[in-house]
Amino acid sequence: MNLILLYDTDFITATSVTLSDDRYQHIRNIHQSKAGDSVRVGKLNGLMGTGIIQSIDQHAVKLTVELDQQPPAKLPLTIILALPRPKMIRRLFRSVAELGVEELIVINSYKVEKSFWLSPALDEQKVQFYLASGLQQAKDTQLPKVTFKRLFKPFVEDELPRLIKDCRGLIAHPGIGQPCPHTIESRSVLAIGPEGGFTDYEVGKFIDVGFEGIHLGERILRVENALTAITSKLYQ
Amino acid sequence: MNLILLYDTDFITATSVTLSDDRYQHIRNIHQSKAGDSVRVGKLNGLMGTGIIQSIDQHAVKLTVELDQQPPAKLPLTIILALPRPKMIRRLFRSVAELGVEELIVINSYKVEKSFWLSPALDEQKVQFYLASGLQQAKDTQLPKVTFKRLFKPFVEDELPRLIKDCRGLIAHPGIGQPCPHTIESRSVLAIGPEGGFTDYEVGKFIDVGFEGIHLGERILRVENALTAITSKLYQ
Repeated sequence: MNLILLYDTDFITATSVTLSDDRYQHIRNIHQSKAGDSVRVGKLNGLMGTGIIQSIDQHAVKLTVELDQQPPAKLPLTIILALPRPKMIRRLFRSVAELGVEELIVINSYKVEKSFWLSPALDEQKVQFYLASGLQQAKDTQLPKVTFKRLFKPFVEDELPRLIKDCRGLIAHPGIGQPCPHTIESRSVLAIGPEGGFTDYEVGKFIDVGFEGIHLGERILRVENALTAITSKLYQ
Repeated sequence: MNLILLYDTDFITATSVTLSDDRYQHIRNIHQSKAGDSVRVGKLNGLMGTGIIQSIDQHAVKLTVELDQQPPAKLPLTIILALPRPKMIRRLFRSVAELGVEELIVINSYKVEKSFWLSPALDEQKVQFYLASGLQQAKDTQLPKVTFKRLFKPFVEDELPRLIKDCRGLIAHPGIGQPCPHTIESRSVLAIGPEGGFTDYEVGKFIDVGFEGIHLGERILRVENALTAITSKLYQ
């Protein structure tokens, strides 16, 4: 936690908050902070700044906060991600927030097992928690927008053409297209398949709409490494 | 597993192998392969090629293998990594192998807890297993060289100057130096700190030897994302 994320409900007055959950535990046990110390704070989807510890005891910490800094700009990037297996959801969603991706669209794909859609990891509260933990790591306050599209064909046929208007559409798939470009200036939409990859039919649907195939060379990376690797190549 | 890694002890003759462990399970249950099917194979630190299934039953699979392809070239990159907390060791070592890093040197650092050095995850067999799983993901056969340096000062003072001869030395640290460069041509040595970062003293020691500070912008990434992000920026 490089930043303590604050919610509306934490505020007692406009400039003071009381925390008694894992954020309090972190300030007490990891930072080992005492009254007078300062911690980095930020308001969800708002400004960042400093919290001065007024008091800290065995139950809670009281902070006076001054929020005066803009969070870092989001990357102009929408990631379209085939729903990962449940044990990977937490890590991938956290990474999306941590890397500063603006929007995540989770889609179905032939190789996504139907049962994955029933995972408790997709509960709205859990998703928000994973995203918040990425923001707290990265020192950011702006949640990425996350949506779920359970029907592949209506999504790629009806929504995708509008989505890549004025954007560069990129689909990561081993062995097709060009090596992943570095440091592009434009807004982009990046599609990443499931473990085992998109099917040829699915890749074709993206290409039909105007996506360019990109690859990472001879090595096949796991989805979480591919996501971080491509995002990092595309933007400084 | 995009490639089944074969060891000397698997070979019955020069061209035939029998597998009955997790590799057999993978061929049987994930690939659902039958006699006559082919799977991608590679010999540890050797050539890659194809294995044709001669027979598969409830206990083992017999393959005839033809090894005729070079594995992908390693990245000309040595990573110096402060020993991560035990639960991260597996993922980080696997990623190092998956990304094609040539050499990994694991070092001590002020913020590495002493107990981390006692982790069973550092057993030689475990380390080899993590690296092999990265190779099997990436379709590679060449193990990265991995060494451990438990004394920081002798390492940076006595070994580091020789190590970065004819190399570009880079130390990743928030807020110092230049943004991480993209697509460098040269061989490089990249130092990555522990959670919480290197201390100023430690950063100074690297700088003294000729390392350049690099950063990833305003966001602070977790070690595993920083490792993948920087490696991907540096090499195509």
